[in-house]
Amino acid sequence: MADNKKKVEQITSMDEDFAKWFTDIVKKAELIEYTSVKGCMVIRPYGYAIWENIQKILDTRFKELGHENVCMPMFITESLLNKEKDHVEGFAPEVAWVTYGGSEKLEERLCVRPTSETLFCEHYSNIIHSYRDLPKLYNQWVSVVRWEKTTRPFLRSREFLWQEGHTIHETAAEAIAETERMLDVYADFCEQALAIPVIKGKKTESDKFAGAVSTYAIEALMHDGKALQAGTSHYFGDGFAKAFDIQYTDRENKKCYPHQTSWGVTTRLIGAVIMTHGDNNGLVLPPAIAPTQAIVIPVAQHKEGVIEAATALTEQLKAAGIRAKLDASDNSAGWKFAEYEMKGVPVRIEIGPRDIENGCCVVATRHNGEKTVLPLEGIGDAVKAKLTEVRDGLFARALANREKRTYDCKTTDEIKEVLEKNGDGFIRAMWCGSPECEKKVKELTGVSSRCIPFGIEHNGDKCVCCGKDADTLVYWGNAY
Amino acid sequence: MADNKKKVEQITSMDEDFAKWFTDIVKKAELIEYTSVKGCMVIRPYGYAIWENIQKILDTRFKELGHENVCMPMFITESLLNKEKDHVEGFAPEVAWVTYGGSEKLEERLCVRPTSETLFCEHYSNIIHSYRDLPKLYNQWVSVVRWEKTTRPFLRSREFLWQEGHTIHETAAEAIAETERMLDVYADFCEQALAIPVIKGKKTESDKFAGAVSTYAIEALMHDGKALQAGTSHYFGDGFAKAFDIQYTDRENKKCYPHQTSWGVTTRLIGAVIMTHGDNNGLVLPPAIAPTQAIVIPVAQHKEGVIEAATALTEQLKAAGIRAKLDASDNSAGWKFAEYEMKGVPVRIEIGPRDIENGCCVVATRHNGEKTVLPLEGIGDAVKAKLTEVRDGLFARALANREKRTYDCKTTDEIKEVLEKNGDGFIRAMWCGSPECEKKVKELTGVSSRCIPFGIEHNGDKCVCCGKDADTLVYWGNAY
Repeated sequence: MADNKKKVEQITSMDEDFAKWFTDIVKKAELIEYTSVKGCMVIRPYGYAIWENIQKILDTRFKELGHENVCMPMFITESLLNKEKDHVEGFAPEVAWVTYGGSEKLEERLCVRPTSETLFCEHYSNIIHSYRDLPKLYNQWVSVVRWEKTTRPFLRSREFLWQEGHTIHETAAEAIAETERMLDVYADFCEQALAIPVIKGKKTESDKFAGAVSTYAIEALMHDGKALQAGTSHYFGDGFAKAFDIQYTDRENKKCYPHQTSWGVTTRLIGAVIMTHGDNNGLVLPPAIAPTQAIVIPVAQHKEGVIEAATALTEQLKAAGIRAKLDASDNSAGWKFAEYEMKGVPVRIEIGPRDIENGCCVVATRHNGEKTVLPLEGIGDAVKAKLTEVRDGLFARALANREKRTYDCKTTDEIKEVLEKNGDGFIRAMWCGSPECEKKVKELTGVSSRCIPFGIEHNGDKCVCCGKDADTLVYWGNAY
Repeated sequence: MADNKKKVEQITSMDEDFAKWFTDIVKKAELIEYTSVKGCMVIRPYGYAIWENIQKILDTRFKELGHENVCMPMFITESLLNKEKDHVEGFAPEVAWVTYGGSEKLEERLCVRPTSETLFCEHYSNIIHSYRDLPKLYNQWVSVVRWEKTTRPFLRSREFLWQEGHTIHETAAEAIAETERMLDVYADFCEQALAIPVIKGKKTESDKFAGAVSTYAIEALMHDGKALQAGTSHYFGDGFAKAFDIQYTDRENKKCYPHQTSWGVTTRLIGAVIMTHGDNNGLVLPPAIAPTQAIVIPVAQHKEGVIEAATALTEQLKAAGIRAKLDASDNSAGWKFAEYEMKGVPVRIEIGPRDIENGCCVVATRHNGEKTVLPLEGIGDAVKAKLTEVRDGLFARALANREKRTYDCKTTDEIKEVLEKNGDGFIRAMWCGSPECEKKVKELTGVSSRCIPFGIEHNGDKCVCCGKDADTLVYWGNAY
């Protein structure tokens, strides 16, 4: 077990330094590698396979709901970016500008897309003429660039991968329904596939997407009590349509402005998975997105029949639709245990001579270290059931952490006390709705508004800051 | 049929103006739309669905052969691009340069990747230490940017989508085998899935990829007799490894330079499909990549039972694994016929009251306009067989066109005569190997060397240009 120890010692403990623990994991689990371009990273095969699994699940869901994939250019002319006032103010300070093509200076500089509303709008204005052309339910899987000062892998990088949905509708009601529907898709994906519980809600005015009428978000709580925005869905009204002169002829033959939405999730979700489920032995992956769901490790593999039995077992698992892998390499069992723990493989299956004799194998679950002896007969279904158990166990643990770290507060002093005593977490507190109070809460306590949750009871009737009447409950937190 | 006529009249005839016919199709079949950024286009849902089908087939094949997907940054620092002399000379004149991040001028400018050898090399130098780390078989699906002066959708655009495989091996032999293997994968894909016959061969020295020891390519002949390079596979030797200081400790504990390859195909393949199979009624898609393989059109759909029968038929086709769609919209049958002809849907199925009575339907194949009456019982298998017929028919027709347009020539005068008489095509002629003769053939006749084909007999023993001894057969052509 010397190798095992060595490997585990390489990770900083999460209690000692959570930030360092995080970067240790992204490197040691071989998710990313740094490059000479600051804030840009290589997503390595293991990290990219996780992203491909996320893509597969979401893309299938988007298409079931009638969305179609498209691909917009990565460049936006400066004049196009400038068309919607709020939008350009929000994004211009953080875009990368292309000024030369080869050795020639461009007549007009181009920004590398930080998001693609302007491109979609230009396109809509070319292809939408009549109500018959509506709705358009579009999506694209691309990378975008935002020139961040401080960068961290997956959480905040200058280039990141995402999907951006862009839809356009006849009526405001239809567009709002789409905004809500896609927020629900994201929430369901996070909870079911990633086993991350989320709060669905609305952003305050100060925290809206640049150019949106309203922004909805899902907010998750990480292991360290910090909040992470896991996905957003925006309703644009007809603001962009007016700025880009997109009009259609309606059923009464009148010219009208259509209503738009956009919504997105990013590779940040991988950061959320790490910080929600990971532990001091490394990554812990929810089964739905794990590149390998079950790793089979032969014990005493030099003995007759062991490799054969392990191979047969692996094939049985694959036939049951499980992403199973056999590691019959000459590394020690200890090394293998540590390696697949680091990589967060949900289920490890050991099979040795005695197991073969007894017609069984040992199934260990990564997230809680529990071992069960299971018969080889029907092992496919048994491991599938285990994977469901793993997802449920991860979700329950993350939910318990969030509940433990969610505090109801009546005053800013109370917020300060709670945070001092318990560390970061979600603060639930009433708010009068004034931007001044929102700002002051941040100044006094450090937490910012995360969202105004949907369908949750009030926990008081006075603003946590000014003490005046308040009928809006807000989740506050220290955010990534 | 008024609508039908109208639609068809909108396309320029291919015999009248092939270039205009091409751009008419990409617009009218709704594959792309132009944007305000010159040379960059929107790939619309129908075009992108074709690309997704191409991706699915190739990605599956790459993974079966052990390749893993990764994602490199889109930016390359100028100093990194400069590391390999030939490479930078080849690409620097046509890259887009980012010089500002927000309002701050960058200390070092960044180019938007025109290709990613330099990024892969930097990464390899970080992760490869021992022979145990080899080989690495990587691929990525991204877009790249080359600042072309003259642009055309799919054929030559400033941004285009592609996959770039990058592999690194212990030995030259292994890397060469990989280069050849991937050329075979491309050739097989083009012939089987796209129904485009290709010539496999090696590029001449003057036409190699910047930084490669040798470049292999597959060359296709378009309907108008012009050549199109459909995919390339490069062997790098250890040149990049030396430039980027990538070394590994071999089995004898010695430091060695590894050997590399790269290979790619692009959205250009969609251009190749259009120009190989398309006709004056629009696009003609090979079944493997057609977003809709069979369109079901109810005839006299207001009559009782027609929509129901057409729906049942569509479901039967889907159950057989066919990408089938029903168009029960209130557009006229004539409009529908023209629409799906324009979109190149391989098989159209008509079903009306009389067909239902007779328990059959009418199956029309797009590429040759043939109609067959087929029984509804077992229609799934029958249509699958039709789709195979369509692929075979397309391939045979494309091959016949290529054979008809391939000419053996002994002198440059003969080349000129042949081209003048027949228009563009492949010229097969011997070459002495001197770059001067290669250049002179181009000057005198207009055709450039396309490739030195593998495994094809000589058609003479004297150079087509200088008349000296020659033992290399070359395919020459006027290329896209």
